[in-house]
Amino acid sequence: MPLRAYYLTPDGTLQRELSEEQTKAAFESGKGLLWVDISETTEEDGKFLERVFKFHQLAVEDCVSPLIHPPKIDDFDDFLFIIVHGINHMVESDIVETAELALFLGCNFVVSNHNAPLYSAEAIRQKVETDGRPMKHGADFLAHTLMDTLIDNVLPTIDQMSDVAQDIEEETIHNPQPPTLEAILKLKRSTLRVHRVMAPQREVINRLSRGEFPMIRTEAQIYYRDIYDHLVRIEDLNQTILDRADNALATYLSSVANRQNETMKVLSIVAAIFLPLTLVAGIYGMNFEHMPELKWEWAYFAVLGFMGIVIISVIWWFWARSWLAWGRKKSTWVRPFAVSPEKLVGYIGRMAKHPRKNKQ
Amino acid sequence: MPLRAYYLTPDGTLQRELSEEQTKAAFESGKGLLWVDISETTEEDGKFLERVFKFHQLAVEDCVSPLIHPPKIDDFDDFLFIIVHGINHMVESDIVETAELALFLGCNFVVSNHNAPLYSAEAIRQKVETDGRPMKHGADFLAHTLMDTLIDNVLPTIDQMSDVAQDIEEETIHNPQPPTLEAILKLKRSTLRVHRVMAPQREVINRLSRGEFPMIRTEAQIYYRDIYDHLVRIEDLNQTILDRADNALATYLSSVANRQNETMKVLSIVAAIFLPLTLVAGIYGMNFEHMPELKWEWAYFAVLGFMGIVIISVIWWFWARSWLAWGRKKSTWVRPFAVSPEKLVGYIGRMAKHPRKNKQ
Amino acid sequence: MPLRAYYLTPDGTLQRELSEEQTKAAFESGKGLLWVDISETTEEDGKFLERVFKFHQLAVEDCVSPLIHPPKIDDFDDFLFIIVHGINHMVESDIVETAELALFLGCNFVVSNHNAPLYSAEAIRQKVETDGRPMKHGADFLAHTLMDTLIDNVLPTIDQMSDVAQDIEEETIHNPQPPTLEAILKLKRSTLRVHRVMAPQREVINRLSRGEFPMIRTEAQIYYRDIYDHLVRIEDLNQTILDRADNALATYLSSVANRQNETMKVLSIVAAIFLPLTLVAGIYGMNFEHMPELKWEWAYFAVLGFMGIVIISVIWWFWARSWLAWGRKKSTWVRPFAVSPEKLVGYIGRMAKHPRKNKQ
Amino acid sequence: MPLRAYYLTPDGTLQRELSEEQTKAAFESGKGLLWVDISETTEEDGKFLERVFKFHQLAVEDCVSPLIHPPKIDDFDDFLFIIVHGINHMVESDIVETAELALFLGCNFVVSNHNAPLYSAEAIRQKVETDGRPMKHGADFLAHTLMDTLIDNVLPTIDQMSDVAQDIEEETIHNPQPPTLEAILKLKRSTLRVHRVMAPQREVINRLSRGEFPMIRTEAQIYYRDIYDHLVRIEDLNQTILDRADNALATYLSSVANRQNETMKVLSIVAAIFLPLTLVAGIYGMNFEHMPELKWEWAYFAVLGFMGIVIISVIWWFWARSWLAWGRKKSTWVRPFAVSPEKLVGYIGRMAKHPRKNKQ
Amino acid sequence: MPLRAYYLTPDGTLQRELSEEQTKAAFESGKGLLWVDISETTEEDGKFLERVFKFHQLAVEDCVSPLIHPPKIDDFDDFLFIIVHGINHMVESDIVETAELALFLGCNFVVSNHNAPLYSAEAIRQKVETDGRPMKHGADFLAHTLMDTLIDNVLPTIDQMSDVAQDIEEETIHNPQPPTLEAILKLKRSTLRVHRVMAPQREVINRLSRGEFPMIRTEAQIYYRDIYDHLVRIEDLNQTILDRADNALATYLSSVANRQNETMKVLSIVAAIFLPLTLVAGIYGMNFEHMPELKWEWAYFAVLGFMGIVIISVIWWFWARSWLAWGRKKSTWVRPFAVSPEKLVGYIGRMAKHPRKNKQ
Repeated sequence: MPLRAYYLTPDGTLQRELSEEQTKAAFESGKGLLWVDISETTEEDGKFLERVFKFHQLAVEDCVSPLIHPPKIDDFDDFLFIIVHGINHMVESDIVETAELALFLGCNFVVSNHNAPLYSAEAIRQKVETDGRPMKHGADFLAHTLMDTLIDNVLPTIDQMSDVAQDIEEETIHNPQPPTLEAILKLKRSTLRVHRVMAPQREVINRLSRGEFPMIRTEAQIYYRDIYDHLVRIEDLNQTILDRADNALATYLSSVANRQNETMKVLSIVAAIFLPLTLVAGIYGMNFEHMPELKWEWAYFAVLGFMGIVIISVIWWFWARSWLAWGRKKSTWVRPFAVSPEKLVGYIGRMAKHPRKNKQ
Repeated sequence: MPLRAYYLTPDGTLQRELSEEQTKAAFESGKGLLWVDISETTEEDGKFLERVFKFHQLAVEDCVSPLIHPPKIDDFDDFLFIIVHGINHMVESDIVETAELALFLGCNFVVSNHNAPLYSAEAIRQKVETDGRPMKHGADFLAHTLMDTLIDNVLPTIDQMSDVAQDIEEETIHNPQPPTLEAILKLKRSTLRVHRVMAPQREVINRLSRGEFPMIRTEAQIYYRDIYDHLVRIEDLNQTILDRADNALATYLSSVANRQNETMKVLSIVAAIFLPLTLVAGIYGMNFEHMPELKWEWAYFAVLGFMGIVIISVIWWFWARSWLAWGRKKSTWVRPFAVSPEKLVGYIGRMAKHPRKNKQ
Repeated sequence: MPLRAYYLTPDGTLQRELSEEQTKAAFESGKGLLWVDISETTEEDGKFLERVFKFHQLAVEDCVSPLIHPPKIDDFDDFLFIIVHGINHMVESDIVETAELALFLGCNFVVSNHNAPLYSAEAIRQKVETDGRPMKHGADFLAHTLMDTLIDNVLPTIDQMSDVAQDIEEETIHNPQPPTLEAILKLKRSTLRVHRVMAPQREVINRLSRGEFPMIRTEAQIYYRDIYDHLVRIEDLNQTILDRADNALATYLSSVANRQNETMKVLSIVAAIFLPLTLVAGIYGMNFEHMPELKWEWAYFAVLGFMGIVIISVIWWFWARSWLAWGRKKSTWVRPFAVSPEKLVGYIGRMAKHPRKNKQ
Repeated sequence: MPLRAYYLTPDGTLQRELSEEQTKAAFESGKGLLWVDISETTEEDGKFLERVFKFHQLAVEDCVSPLIHPPKIDDFDDFLFIIVHGINHMVESDIVETAELALFLGCNFVVSNHNAPLYSAEAIRQKVETDGRPMKHGADFLAHTLMDTLIDNVLPTIDQMSDVAQDIEEETIHNPQPPTLEAILKLKRSTLRVHRVMAPQREVINRLSRGEFPMIRTEAQIYYRDIYDHLVRIEDLNQTILDRADNALATYLSSVANRQNETMKVLSIVAAIFLPLTLVAGIYGMNFEHMPELKWEWAYFAVLGFMGIVIISVIWWFWARSWLAWGRKKSTWVRPFAVSPEKLVGYIGRMAKHPRKNKQ
Repeated sequence: MPLRAYYLTPDGTLQRELSEEQTKAAFESGKGLLWVDISETTEEDGKFLERVFKFHQLAVEDCVSPLIHPPKIDDFDDFLFIIVHGINHMVESDIVETAELALFLGCNFVVSNHNAPLYSAEAIRQKVETDGRPMKHGADFLAHTLMDTLIDNVLPTIDQMSDVAQDIEEETIHNPQPPTLEAILKLKRSTLRVHRVMAPQREVINRLSRGEFPMIRTEAQIYYRDIYDHLVRIEDLNQTILDRADNALATYLSSVANRQNETMKVLSIVAAIFLPLTLVAGIYGMNFEHMPELKWEWAYFAVLGFMGIVIISVIWWFWARSWLAWGRKKSTWVRPFAVSPEKLVGYIGRMAKHPRKNKQ
């Protein structure tokens, strides 16, 4: 509903808060630059657009509808109808949402629509209020500024996701728990969402930068090409985060398997120590009349000593097979991922130079 | 078999229930707009189409055949033969089926065929009966309305799948059971089906919106482009559901592994407590003649006390290694996924700001 | 070696069993329609083709060679050399094999080669013997009929694979065993094979339907387009079977994990019940002189009673944690997949409407 | 270093062992056909090529360098510089290596370079020595023969890999062991290598067969198209081997899981039989004064009998739950994959006809 | 900030350390070859470039910005703005980083920018200082040399990664530990990074070699095509390393499962030996009055002997089922991967010739 209209007259004066008639007159003059910014577009605004600008009903419907529309350019000869997407990152809930910006771009006017207050549009509006600068280079530059700010606003989200990836990697190495898995999957889904939002825009921005439309002058095209480069960079960063999430997932799943193995080792060691000894005790608890050992004076202590020897032997056997870690490098199995990443890096570096001879 | 013919004469009168001769006359007049809607097309209807309209035998066969044909446009110069697909969602059985609509589109006629009663065609037929509106703008708009309604009818199915995804996610977190797996796989299959039905239509609708065919006038093309946008949006929503199903699958599989681990822990703890004690009892059950402890007066109670100490020590040891959860955050392993999603979100949010130092 | 030549003279008479000279004369007349069908092509047949038709040596070599060649069209100006593939399904061994058909298509002749007797070619040959119908519309229609029959013959195989998929799904749910896995993998491989055979043909058939070659007249092109549609439909059906096999695989693997979990639960329950009791028995089997309980009159029965209480408590504890299923819905874990698919569907249906509140 | 030059003079005489001057004269005459074959190309050979033929320095460098270069065609107007790849299969070490052949193709000359002695080039050289046949049809045919022989030499390797796949499949079914896994992974890597070597050549060979270069006459193009078909066939065979390796991998991994399950079943059965009986023995080993059963005359034998009954009951219980296989179809779990593939095929065949009713 | 300018005057003199005015004069003369190399480009350098060369603000911004920009060519009619990427491999930390080189290429000048000191640019600068050689062939050749050196510098990194892959493979076979997994995942991520850096450059280099830009003369194009070939080769090598890492991952995961199996076997064997014997000892420890065996003179030794027989029988049973490895080929399961790769290769070689008949 908040609708704000600005008109930069051909002689460079900035008019604000235009009435419907003034807007219509400015639009029909074919000169200067008219910018109408509509936030939370309503049915009423839709009718306003049809009345004043005679925009095609379908384009207006796309503005009014609260649904997300795919990025696109519709060429209506007199003007372009452009839809581009940004990312709204809800900090408090960590949810990645698509922010839609719809633009009507003519030779002397830009109409921008968005269903939610848009930080980027607001920033430009304030600059216009201050000194009118973003409007001074014409409609194509104003539209560029709006789109560029929208897409660059994705970068903080990417940075934040990168930080989350960093934390997840550390947590996966030091203390992987089910919530870690949840966090990994959530991060993967966020990267997929960013990819799905950004990728289809490349084609749209590419067409704008190719000189296909007369509303975008030759000198402006390179600026649209710049937006394209930003899109490519965002996708590359996003892809790197996805790779890290995939690696964290593999590490997590492997550490779950390692823990299970550790549990089984504890069980096996306990059984291997105590079951044989219980048998020995059971044998000397039998009630046969003729069991010569029972009468030997030191037999009891001999049996206790024998049991001690068995315990030590079994423990030694497991130790020799690396099932027990006392006196070994702790990193190898007790806490599988307790090495810091820095050590790991060094470890690989050394490995590359002095191939190890671990034949154990 | 139900065949209904409507004719909007050039002077704007709507004729209904045309006989074969009237239909033929209307078709051959080359004026006005003739709409023939055939549901549950039979051999007999096929012959009718060949007699009245002289449609090509192959196109008529595609209408009559109960099989599903790929979406396509066949250009027969005088008319287009178009096949598009929607989704029929059987609510009672949760099965996703392809609904096929075959259209003959000429300059002054539309013939629509479908092997099952089609909710979308029926809705338009009723509007025509009421005030003839959908037929007032010509054949290309009528065909657009038929296709648009068919494809928009996919959205309720998508919404329902989205609800199912929501329920599955919750169930996967709170109480994953084999039926949950079945539900996840079923959902994945539904999304794949929707994708397979929708994706090939983009090319068909794209060609219709490009001005390639004279039956579709310039002013109608943008409306076909609008159908294209709907297809893109449906695919995006569908893809998001697929992502959610994939994540639920990963969570499910991981929780199965966690449960197994829990089972093993119970076993290990039981064995580690009772096997050593049984050995102790066995030792004092041996029948050696010279076992000095047996005669000590408080020996029995000393042994019982020792056993109690062993039990407490073992439990403490497992507790210290986080195998036991009393007094710990329950979320970590007893009920691996008992945290609510809201908490998780908050958890990640905090994590992003204060990287944890879990070095345990 | 079996070589059969038919000649439909320009005046509509069908000549059979032509000699080499008659064949050559018919070919060189440039009129009527000559069809030579060679089954199990030999070196001798190759020489015959070079002598009579002067076909290029490389094309003849492709016919004679027993190897499978990729589908293709070679344009030799006077004629086309076409290779298309069908599926031979060996019912007794359930193996999917590629059936190759090589065609020389000129304006007044078709030469078809196949290394194995081909059911589809044989069927058409019999129709020709009966009334000459398939040859009445010219060389392009005869070639179309041969290819169309070949490719449509894939459908029974697809149907059979679909039945196998149905059986596998049921078996995976009710009684997954290693042979089930074998069957799933075999089915996947069959679908991949069908895909690999069918996919490259789309380009070949597409070129034939595009009016690129003068041997295929305009009125025949739509019939080749029809073959194209059949290919697309076959691939879609095949893809659906692949999806089902993938789902069956996921279900199978998950049920293997579930069984393992069940095995572990049995072990843990047995240990948790009997190890503590054995300790109790061991304690009262100790030979200390001062064990006051031993002399109490009802001590023995008290201990037996205590043991009974322990057994009941442990069982109750496991039951409360859902490890035991008595009195619970059987479906949940004892027989993980004992629910019928119908129930599952209903379950999901209900789930979609009344999201459950299982917070257990 | 071995450099051999042949010159077929315009009048059909074959000159051998040409000196540098003769080679240069033959090259500059622009007539006849000159073939220079260089094996283990050295710096010296490189200078020779620059001196005699004035080849571009970069092309000569590619010949001299021992590195593998991507397949390509460089068009130098007067001649083409072509790099194609074959496979060298080291039988004794089972390693798949890329064999590189560099060709300079002009109107009256072919210069072939390879860094290792090439079986295919050697075979053609010997044919030339014998009767000069491969050189009789001109430079384009000679180049075709060289490339065709190189690429066809891949087929024996593919056959061998197919045999290995066969063996691996049998081993996976009958006796899967870690070396089987190694063999599967090695086979997969070989197929990936073959794919990576062959796939990029399709574009190169395709360009040669399209009439893009004047050095390749129209009548030779179909022969290059034949090489293209061979490439497609090789890739299809290779892909089939990859599918088989993937299936063997799935079977292997599943059989590892099955074995683990079997191990656990043995443990559970042992525990379920002996733990309860040990408790019984422990109970009657208690030293209570008032244990009436101890004095009964047949109590001992009654207890022994009771133990026997327990053993039989437990075994029966496990047998009834299919944990034990005596008297059951052996195939189901004791040796999970002991069924022969022939039986499996029959099994699936039957399954397709009489869907089983296993509701166990 | 380090900015170095060189000017090769049309008469072949090399001027160094040009002032801003001299640089501007050289640039504006349109003759000779001017090279300005800027390392660690600052805002100040940006202003210098705009003052002297009048470069477009966006291109200058890309140079000054510390961010990584996607590889691209921007055509500004008078000059090209090219961004290409290399790899900086930090030896001490084993991290793969993107090194960015930005070039302005005009007819008589090259301006190169890089945010970090670039080994490749430095090497060329020193050659220029020595004898001016790299500048003698014109601007396009100088730009080629800069790009070629940058991209060829990737090869040492690839070699190092290949060495790491070698070490990882050996470690995976001989002693797989969690750090091995970390190393595998790290290697995979490095290959993905190299791929992501190199792949997009193919399009850029391809355009430069196609004669699309007048600044690159025909004789230079083949040299750019040579860079393209290097890119393809690097990607092929990189892909091979990725394959090896994937295989190592599969081997690692399988060996984790094998170890777990081994742990379980130890447990099962211990239980199967000692639980039955403990029962026997327990039976003869019962206190029944009527146990005839107790009075037999040799009963005790008979029981001991019986126990020995049981132990041997159980061990034999496990040995016969291959659970124990004494006297068997060690390679099969005790140390699953203790075979050397050489033996494995031989094993497969033999396997290919004499298919085994292991029917165990």
